[in-house]
Amino acid sequence: MTLVQGLDYTSVFIFGLTGALAASRAQLDIVGFLFLACLTAVGGGTLRDVLLNRDQLFWIADPGMILSACVAAILVFFTAHFLESRLRALEWLDALALGVAVPAGVGVALGLDQSWPIVLIMGVATGTFGGLMRDVVCNELPLILKKGELYASAALVGASAALLAAKFTTDSLIILTVCGVTTVALRAGSIRFGWCLPVYKSRPPRQ
Amino acid sequence: MTLVQGLDYTSVFIFGLTGALAASRAQLDIVGFLFLACLTAVGGGTLRDVLLNRDQLFWIADPGMILSACVAAILVFFTAHFLESRLRALEWLDALALGVAVPAGVGVALGLDQSWPIVLIMGVATGTFGGLMRDVVCNELPLILKKGELYASAALVGASAALLAAKFTTDSLIILTVCGVTTVALRAGSIRFGWCLPVYKSRPPRQ
Amino acid sequence: MTLVQGLDYTSVFIFGLTGALAASRAQLDIVGFLFLACLTAVGGGTLRDVLLNRDQLFWIADPGMILSACVAAILVFFTAHFLESRLRALEWLDALALGVAVPAGVGVALGLDQSWPIVLIMGVATGTFGGLMRDVVCNELPLILKKGELYASAALVGASAALLAAKFTTDSLIILTVCGVTTVALRAGSIRFGWCLPVYKSRPPRQ
Repeated sequence: MTLVQGLDYTSVFIFGLTGALAASRAQLDIVGFLFLACLTAVGGGTLRDVLLNRDQLFWIADPGMILSACVAAILVFFTAHFLESRLRALEWLDALALGVAVPAGVGVALGLDQSWPIVLIMGVATGTFGGLMRDVVCNELPLILKKGELYASAALVGASAALLAAKFTTDSLIILTVCGVTTVALRAGSIRFGWCLPVYKSRPPRQ
Repeated sequence: MTLVQGLDYTSVFIFGLTGALAASRAQLDIVGFLFLACLTAVGGGTLRDVLLNRDQLFWIADPGMILSACVAAILVFFTAHFLESRLRALEWLDALALGVAVPAGVGVALGLDQSWPIVLIMGVATGTFGGLMRDVVCNELPLILKKGELYASAALVGASAALLAAKFTTDSLIILTVCGVTTVALRAGSIRFGWCLPVYKSRPPRQ
Repeated sequence: MTLVQGLDYTSVFIFGLTGALAASRAQLDIVGFLFLACLTAVGGGTLRDVLLNRDQLFWIADPGMILSACVAAILVFFTAHFLESRLRALEWLDALALGVAVPAGVGVALGLDQSWPIVLIMGVATGTFGGLMRDVVCNELPLILKKGELYASAALVGASAALLAAKFTTDSLIILTVCGVTTVALRAGSIRFGWCLPVYKSRPPRQ
């Protein structure tokens, strides 16, 4: 298994958990859990593969990916009621999945020798689209649009960190670790400590 | 015309009717009818073809598909006011379309010798995504997320029935008929008699 | 630069402005602006390229497209508060972008010698999907579904005008200009003067 495949597996599993948690909040049946888990789990990577026109989607090349998302769905179906707050669990798992999926996107784009804007976009798109589809389908405000939180920003800075690291080393383990750790750290800091960027104000403050 | 093409045509027409009914509920003009009918009609099959990286989308290979969706839109524009309940008509037609689109997805995947998880996913995705896009665009709760109804489940069991039938016969007419009949029967039973799977409860019942 | 590339650049920039305006209405940070600007800017053209199975997406072949959308995002982030009504600005810019993106879609489809229904669809899809994704992600009623306005209709008539013009000339500058001007004129007339097509009524008027 290559490094990128490992990242894909991990992000599929964790995003699968978040999809299943969203299904639990919508009180779906087990197949609804499977559906939302798979959609969330493979959404970002599928977009990446379609945009880059890869010969085969990562989960068609290796259907074990789908089974991994299904295991996540079943796990949540039988254990989610032990959680104190499923919304909080969803948010933290989503942060973790973001930190795995961004390097998965960056790694594939770097492997295909794409230019740096494309590497950044593949990192952000792979990281964010699974969760975005989950939220759009569930008719909830996407996490990515929550005011005053780092989300797309965390993904973008993480992907940029990978580009920076790639200037100094060719070891993809180091590059992708830097990417993932940066992303998770920023996102976690935002959830836990309220880190954020200044948001747009419709009028500048009066003097 | 191959069997799968026939299924594609039929599902395009029926899903086109449901898209047009959604347009009538949103009180759009005739072009809005055409737009939503086409989106719903070809949405699922387009996803299938993009995911499987087929050379040409089914409706680009045969633009008659689009005309068929347009006929559905025009038909509904001039006759929907005769219906007693457009919501109920939409639901029943959607059930019928599901039962045609699932075998259309399964048939293509089987024809490409895909592994069984991929066959199941193509069945479910082809069956459900057109309607899902219709509901997301119209900002309505997707039918697939309605609590206590078989929808994704009906599609999944239908696709599984096809895999089972494929163990005993190679006649795709039989395989796809089993698939479609199972899907429609479960979905119709759910609408008419309330058949459902147990849904997730946030707390297990007290003893 | 070919004519179609120029249209792609222009529509990317203007749609980028509308995405950034939507971000300002959701009070996002600068990365949120970049995200929504890019999504809106390349959404329609990406769909076109994926549907037509082109070898490379237009913005992967030329990453300058992405930078152009980013410039639009930054511009709006620092100047939008000078606008009296950001909603009105969004609507007018969207009309302009529609009039550039529809010919961009039509031009590509004509260049690939597609049949006329496909040319029409590529025009409408390229013109409308970026804005549709912007509105769906922001959880707003899509402009395309607003009652009693020409939107999909303007795109469809514009694309049809291109087909008509193509009967008389092979000069793509003329064909695509006719297409764009028709689209913008209809859409602008609809915003400014309330031009519209009759909408569906659930019951015909009593006699």
